[in-house]
Amino acid sequence: MQKRVEFEDFAVITPTADISVERHGGRAKCLQRLIRLEMPVPRTVALSFDAVHQIAAGVMPDKPAILAAFEEGALLSVRPSSEDQDWGGPGAILNIGMNDARHARLIDEIGEAPANTIYRRFVQAFAIDVARLDPDMFEASGSDAHTLRAALDAYEDEMDEPFPQDPARQLGEVLRSMARAWEGTTARLLRQAKGAPADAGLGLVVQQMALGLGPEESGSGVIKFIDRVTGLPQVTGRYLSQSQGRAALTHGDGVFYLTRDERGASLQDHCPEIYAELLKWGEVSRRRLREEMEIEFTIAGGQLAILDAVRVPRSSRAAVRVAVSLAEDSIIPREEALSRIEPRALTELLHSQVNPDGLRDVFARGIAASPGAATGKIVFSSAAAQASAARGEACILVRRETTPEDIRGMHAASAVLTERGGMTSHAAVIARGLGLPCVVGVSDLVLRWRDKSLRVPDGRVFHEGDVITIDGTNGEAIAGEVEMLPPALDDAYRALLGWAEEVCDIGVRANADTPADAGTARDFGADGIGLCRTEHMFFDDGRLTVMREMIFAKTLDDRAAALEQLLPMQREDFTRLFQIMSGQPVCIRLFDPPLHEFLPHSREGLRELAEALDMPLSDVTRRVEALAEFNPMLGMRGVRLGITVPEIYEMQARAIFEATIEASKTGEAVVPEIMIPLVSAKREVELVKTRIDGVAAAVRTEQGVDFDFRLGVMVETPRAALRAGEIAQHSAFLSFGTNDLTQMTYGLSRDDAGRFMGAYVQQEVYPEDPFHTLDVDGVGELLLIGAERGRRASPNMTLSVCGEHGGNPESIAFCRQAGFDYVSCSPFRVPVARLAAAHLALGVKQRRKTYY
Amino acid sequence: MQKRVEFEDFAVITPTADISVERHGGRAKCLQRLIRLEMPVPRTVALSFDAVHQIAAGVMPDKPAILAAFEEGALLSVRPSSEDQDWGGPGAILNIGMNDARHARLIDEIGEAPANTIYRRFVQAFAIDVARLDPDMFEASGSDAHTLRAALDAYEDEMDEPFPQDPARQLGEVLRSMARAWEGTTARLLRQAKGAPADAGLGLVVQQMALGLGPEESGSGVIKFIDRVTGLPQVTGRYLSQSQGRAALTHGDGVFYLTRDERGASLQDHCPEIYAELLKWGEVSRRRLREEMEIEFTIAGGQLAILDAVRVPRSSRAAVRVAVSLAEDSIIPREEALSRIEPRALTELLHSQVNPDGLRDVFARGIAASPGAATGKIVFSSAAAQASAARGEACILVRRETTPEDIRGMHAASAVLTERGGMTSHAAVIARGLGLPCVVGVSDLVLRWRDKSLRVPDGRVFHEGDVITIDGTNGEAIAGEVEMLPPALDDAYRALLGWAEEVCDIGVRANADTPADAGTARDFGADGIGLCRTEHMFFDDGRLTVMREMIFAKTLDDRAAALEQLLPMQREDFTRLFQIMSGQPVCIRLFDPPLHEFLPHSREGLRELAEALDMPLSDVTRRVEALAEFNPMLGMRGVRLGITVPEIYEMQARAIFEATIEASKTGEAVVPEIMIPLVSAKREVELVKTRIDGVAAAVRTEQGVDFDFRLGVMVETPRAALRAGEIAQHSAFLSFGTNDLTQMTYGLSRDDAGRFMGAYVQQEVYPEDPFHTLDVDGVGELLLIGAERGRRASPNMTLSVCGEHGGNPESIAFCRQAGFDYVSCSPFRVPVARLAAAHLALGVKQRRKTYY
Repeated sequence: MQKRVEFEDFAVITPTADISVERHGGRAKCLQRLIRLEMPVPRTVALSFDAVHQIAAGVMPDKPAILAAFEEGALLSVRPSSEDQDWGGPGAILNIGMNDARHARLIDEIGEAPANTIYRRFVQAFAIDVARLDPDMFEASGSDAHTLRAALDAYEDEMDEPFPQDPARQLGEVLRSMARAWEGTTARLLRQAKGAPADAGLGLVVQQMALGLGPEESGSGVIKFIDRVTGLPQVTGRYLSQSQGRAALTHGDGVFYLTRDERGASLQDHCPEIYAELLKWGEVSRRRLREEMEIEFTIAGGQLAILDAVRVPRSSRAAVRVAVSLAEDSIIPREEALSRIEPRALTELLHSQVNPDGLRDVFARGIAASPGAATGKIVFSSAAAQASAARGEACILVRRETTPEDIRGMHAASAVLTERGGMTSHAAVIARGLGLPCVVGVSDLVLRWRDKSLRVPDGRVFHEGDVITIDGTNGEAIAGEVEMLPPALDDAYRALLGWAEEVCDIGVRANADTPADAGTARDFGADGIGLCRTEHMFFDDGRLTVMREMIFAKTLDDRAAALEQLLPMQREDFTRLFQIMSGQPVCIRLFDPPLHEFLPHSREGLRELAEALDMPLSDVTRRVEALAEFNPMLGMRGVRLGITVPEIYEMQARAIFEATIEASKTGEAVVPEIMIPLVSAKREVELVKTRIDGVAAAVRTEQGVDFDFRLGVMVETPRAALRAGEIAQHSAFLSFGTNDLTQMTYGLSRDDAGRFMGAYVQQEVYPEDPFHTLDVDGVGELLLIGAERGRRASPNMTLSVCGEHGGNPESIAFCRQAGFDYVSCSPFRVPVARLAAAHLALGVKQRRKTYY
Repeated sequence: MQKRVEFEDFAVITPTADISVERHGGRAKCLQRLIRLEMPVPRTVALSFDAVHQIAAGVMPDKPAILAAFEEGALLSVRPSSEDQDWGGPGAILNIGMNDARHARLIDEIGEAPANTIYRRFVQAFAIDVARLDPDMFEASGSDAHTLRAALDAYEDEMDEPFPQDPARQLGEVLRSMARAWEGTTARLLRQAKGAPADAGLGLVVQQMALGLGPEESGSGVIKFIDRVTGLPQVTGRYLSQSQGRAALTHGDGVFYLTRDERGASLQDHCPEIYAELLKWGEVSRRRLREEMEIEFTIAGGQLAILDAVRVPRSSRAAVRVAVSLAEDSIIPREEALSRIEPRALTELLHSQVNPDGLRDVFARGIAASPGAATGKIVFSSAAAQASAARGEACILVRRETTPEDIRGMHAASAVLTERGGMTSHAAVIARGLGLPCVVGVSDLVLRWRDKSLRVPDGRVFHEGDVITIDGTNGEAIAGEVEMLPPALDDAYRALLGWAEEVCDIGVRANADTPADAGTARDFGADGIGLCRTEHMFFDDGRLTVMREMIFAKTLDDRAAALEQLLPMQREDFTRLFQIMSGQPVCIRLFDPPLHEFLPHSREGLRELAEALDMPLSDVTRRVEALAEFNPMLGMRGVRLGITVPEIYEMQARAIFEATIEASKTGEAVVPEIMIPLVSAKREVELVKTRIDGVAAAVRTEQGVDFDFRLGVMVETPRAALRAGEIAQHSAFLSFGTNDLTQMTYGLSRDDAGRFMGAYVQQEVYPEDPFHTLDVDGVGELLLIGAERGRRASPNMTLSVCGEHGGNPESIAFCRQAGFDYVSCSPFRVPVARLAAAHLALGVKQRRKTYY
């Protein structure tokens, strides 16, 4: 079928051979590098992608010529060599060339038991992986002649011919079976899922084996020079005397551990010269391959052979440590250290994590909505969470779904688990903002509020107070405590982020609502606060009551009195924020949510409220009902509230200005930024601006102190984007709130989208969840229109994006290209955003992981 | 202060004098026209706007010269002459020139009593309107010498000088006082509210008086030649013997009625020649002034004098009748007849109206949400409304607010009254669609559901069954029955609409959901159905239960079984629609609302549902709760439902296609248009299109009949407008749903906007309610973007607007300019839209109402 193309059948890998990753795969290329470094690599032959493709199509290379490249009678291994280490490939096959004659010779050389073992294993591997016989028939192990014989007989019975004795035929069939395995549908789908292109090729490497069995010290092992979790220098690995290949390493007998410890004999003690040689090759590969490598080796008759080396698989924190360490040792430039870290990988460093090497008793799985892990006692209500926090006990808040009333409970909890919701549900969004581990959408839980119990899929029932662990990184709920790794904001992390900041050409601010958030933002190196939502401040216990009094005020005087009580609290909030951010910009969004979010909806809550306000229950109920809305997202909130109940914004502006004066006394001068939410018309901005300017003038006069401030607009309705030109006339800045803008552009409520978003993304109706990845085509066009019109009207306009998308590398690329000044995202995403921005500034392309 | 500009002080109105509306006002110009027609108009002088403005500034014209224009010793009147009849002006002042000497002469001429009356009235008018003395001091009436003396004395006491005897001084002061009154702040604000520009000028006309008192037949009156309500030819007016001026006409004594009737003596009987002369002048003015005029006249000593004439104020139906009649008599061209009718005025013709001349006992006022009037018995629930309709009794549905569950009740009611809501509330929108009189937002009602009573502001209490009338044109709720005028879809109306259709260059379709709507649409001359919402069809009693079974189906088979039951009902719906519209296009929107709209929310409703479905109440409750949404507007509805529960659209498509075949058998071939709602991404259209094409193919095969159909998209998310280019690739048409598009562009829920829309429009945050008047700047830009991109991708694309804005003249202008093919609006707005479109095609500018 296929037209035969010209290609070199195979190449012996020498320092000067023409070997490339693109034609022979990463393993072949890596082996050439090891050879160039003069490591003791056994003779190796590489078959190109083309060659393997031809083999799969039935066109064999010149087998005798390949065999001729090796020592007469050598045993051979064949291993896959794809372009990317992650794409997998068929398993290695060892001991090719083994036959009755070689078996007899081997008995003389290394004794009968090892010779039997090697032959039996080869027969078994060949039968199962090459001849595709039933594995059940070839499962016996043992080193006696009888077991070997049984394997050979089984093969002969099934295949109706004796086990092939010709090494060339053996090699040919191994090569064909591996080539065809690569082209199978399942293998193709699996590697495509990992990002491989449809036509990804497979190379194969044929290597002469160094036998790890025999009279002198012989064995096989792997060695690496860092800890895979921490990245700190540490020799780890395994060595097993009288063994060959990786499979044997799990075997318990005759072990030599690699390094000296309490467990007994080690390679380090037993063969110090070979151990020292391994350390030398480790250092050489670090310096010359500029990577931490894991080396696979064999000792044959006291001689070290290095069979292969791959980049050490590692945790994100280890990756950071290694990259920084290589840069600090001047092995790679800083820019390369930056480019080696995938921005999203940083998230792992910012939170405690479940130790991937530990045991875990997972009782439910859901959507990994906010990364990190935490352990605590189950609570089923926000009140219980607060009580628990007051007792100093860590707790996990378990809810059907969360609502704004749960904010305080979420602040008090160590992690959150909800039955409903998706990546963009209230629980998920708030948890990410708070840096709280969170798993949502665990739909097979049965939550019984009455008897405070949680029935999980395997039938177990958990009660309030039972200890569980939430792994928000992997979307798992785990019974009891598990071994944890603490966050890794260590020197390596700090060095990397410092270098990122130096090359960044777009600012990264944090969304921070509380002093705690602000502290996190500062610790994570934010350039200021891009979005301080003020409404969360009113959910505190003492304030909520006053807030409700304000809502229920019958006269303007009553309302003023309630706001008078809130003023010093808000002033204190802002003063602390300004102090923590010491001179960095703080952008405060004026009150945004509908008032009914502050009111209870349960009968009990209404009754308590009626008592607190000394009003008849029926009045309170009617008032609460009257404030209810069909579509709160599109209702009486944001600037609409600011215009119809202007006293709220006036109180907030006063609090901001008084805090500005207060904070400027002890620290750097503060220039607060005030942001108006949900604007859809220029006149809204004019009206608010007039009142806020009035408050500023009053405060300046009262206190006899001058101060500056900037007033701007949160662009979150499509209309505000379209009318940015005229809105810009009254705005020092425009900050695009992409959460709401996405909701309105799609006509899609974040809270309600969960029900079908999964199906939508699966059917590719949307390529991605637009609340997760900025919709460049639709929402993005509105951003560009708004930015362009805003800038045209007011060239010094500050432009930014706040909201979930702000921390997203793809969104940052978009904003950078559109000339935005900064992005703002949750504090826990600041490092990711910063590194992503650095990558963009450096022009880093998504790096393909290779073997070295 | 003011620089004196050159101007002619005054002009005697002659056929050739240089008199214009723009310089002298409408009354002056009209008088010149009467003079040109050779009517017996007493000598008249016009003062220009400039002159009057100078007078107000203190610069007097040459008074003796003005006086010299009249007969020696004549009495004069001064009347205002502004550019527009509606702008008002100071009241007329009569009998200038009256003094002791003239009084003495007048006693000889016409007797003492009339002479006393004339003098006393002049003194009183001068004292109050010119000298600005306390009116209480000049309220005495009577024709004796004592009363006259008292008035003269009171004047002298207050002014410290005798009543001015010099006619020149009298005239000067009258002119100054009238000029200044016009420039006063209150007068200015009042006329600006009626659309007058800030610098609107006032002219004055000074006319020699014909005294309606004296020995021979003397008196004054007004006459017009049509009925002001119907516009039909009918002589009406008043005549009072021995009187002068309009004021006297309310007086009961000595009345001659104008025409012969049972009430006694009439001008027609008493002075047939003069009556005939009046009829002649009426006919002359109709032919030559091309208008129906109301003529003010005086009979002095048996001689007819015509003092003034104005355009007859008239109802909308009278306006249509007059315009059509003038055109049919070839007095004006048809285009002018069209241009004379303000499109919105047609609404009045389509509904019954409360007779403006009748008595009305108004018990509450609210927002006039849907025009027309109806009388019926109060009902407080939709169930009661349906029961009432079943008994054949008209009823008025009174609710706090309506919800989709009230649709059936609204269909059954004759009118709707709600305590809450605004122009865009559910009740208002649906009522306008149904052509049902509706008053909303009557917030001072106290509705007690338990004892089924309604307490109104004046303390009265109405109960279920009490008869009331709703005047949706004026926003009034009226106790009992009142005199009604029936709709006026008469020959004049039909003629006008026919002429409009001839000149229209943009189509007008109707939004019609039911056969009844479709009938109305056809009667009102729609070009087809632009939006048939299918969801209302499922609220019928029998269907709702099946619908709920479909929602609660546990298996696909159960769901299919429920849809199988709905299929013949839908097929029947569509067949009837197609038959009624007999070949005109019908655009059917696929199912749109969230499923939870079909579920009960009350405890009772849930219990009934559980029984009907034979499910535990707890299961039903949980399921209903699970379907609830935070923002239903932005939730699981429209195409999202179509993709996640594709069986619904498949059933609907099948019903449409089977109905198409059915209806085409007996009538013209039907080419149904199928519209997908709430699209935000191209792929949504692709997925639905694939399924619907599949259904079409299946139906064609099953029935062995071919048919055509057109699939299109309802553009109602901003994203759909932005991505119209790619959406157009799969769409035969794009119809912009401006209701939802406005909601999403502003981030504003129509149902929740009522709470602040009033304040917003008042403070000019929005120039208009954007749900009422298309927001050209924001939503309009999205329309233009969508239209342009859609047409570029597919030049033969049909473009339209459906939704409330469709019938709005401003929106039609916008759509026409943007090259849209048609607009679609509620059937009751089709005539308005058609006439507005005709105006646009004719280039008619909003016409200023003048005196003639």
